[in-house]
Amino acid sequence: MSTSDPYFQRHIFFCCNRREDGRECCADKGANELRDYCKQQVKKRGLAGTGRVRVNMAGCLDRCELGPVAVVYPEGVWYRYQNREDIDEIVEQHLANGEPVQRLKI
Amino acid sequence: MSTSDPYFQRHIFFCCNRREDGRECCADKGANELRDYCKQQVKKRGLAGTGRVRVNMAGCLDRCELGPVAVVYPEGVWYRYQNREDIDEIVEQHLANGEPVQRLKI
Repeated sequence: MSTSDPYFQRHIFFCCNRREDGRECCADKGANELRDYCKQQVKKRGLAGTGRVRVNMAGCLDRCELGPVAVVYPEGVWYRYQNREDIDEIVEQHLANGEPVQRLKI
Repeated sequence: MSTSDPYFQRHIFFCCNRREDGRECCADKGANELRDYCKQQVKKRGLAGTGRVRVNMAGCLDRCELGPVAVVYPEGVWYRYQNREDIDEIVEQHLANGEPVQRLKI
């Protein structure tokens, strides 16, 4: 890896914020379970690691009303996902092959 | 904001991971306090919000040995910061004006 290569080719952050005041939040909509599932799938497909893909949890990404949300950088593509099939599609099409999943974009 | 504009112009993620097994981690090196400070400074300078700057905590960014670390997207610039002066420089020079702080880059 040269010094100009990105440390991660694609870096996906899942909002895993939990609100305790009754307002809607990503954590109430399956964010943690589906973040874990995404991490497993990325690892299983051999995509994880330096120069490749990293999956992270993040604090509130401030798009609560659209949650659960995740953002993929460096592209800055935002997703609303709802189940494992959505995650599979993001992993397969975007994280592995670089093509954003149009139907899940917000 | 048009649909092609990024939701956040710059998005900085601070690794705030805490390891309980004795290995070094960003949380033991002031990450949470300096993330809060960064958030305050970004707000104070009127940089926070949609189309501008977002400051977030994140789980382990997997560069523990260089910590405490933060990454700014979409540029994918990684920093090792150690004190408030470092954060001031990242906020002023990079988050506000788009010029990475060379002396703090990793």
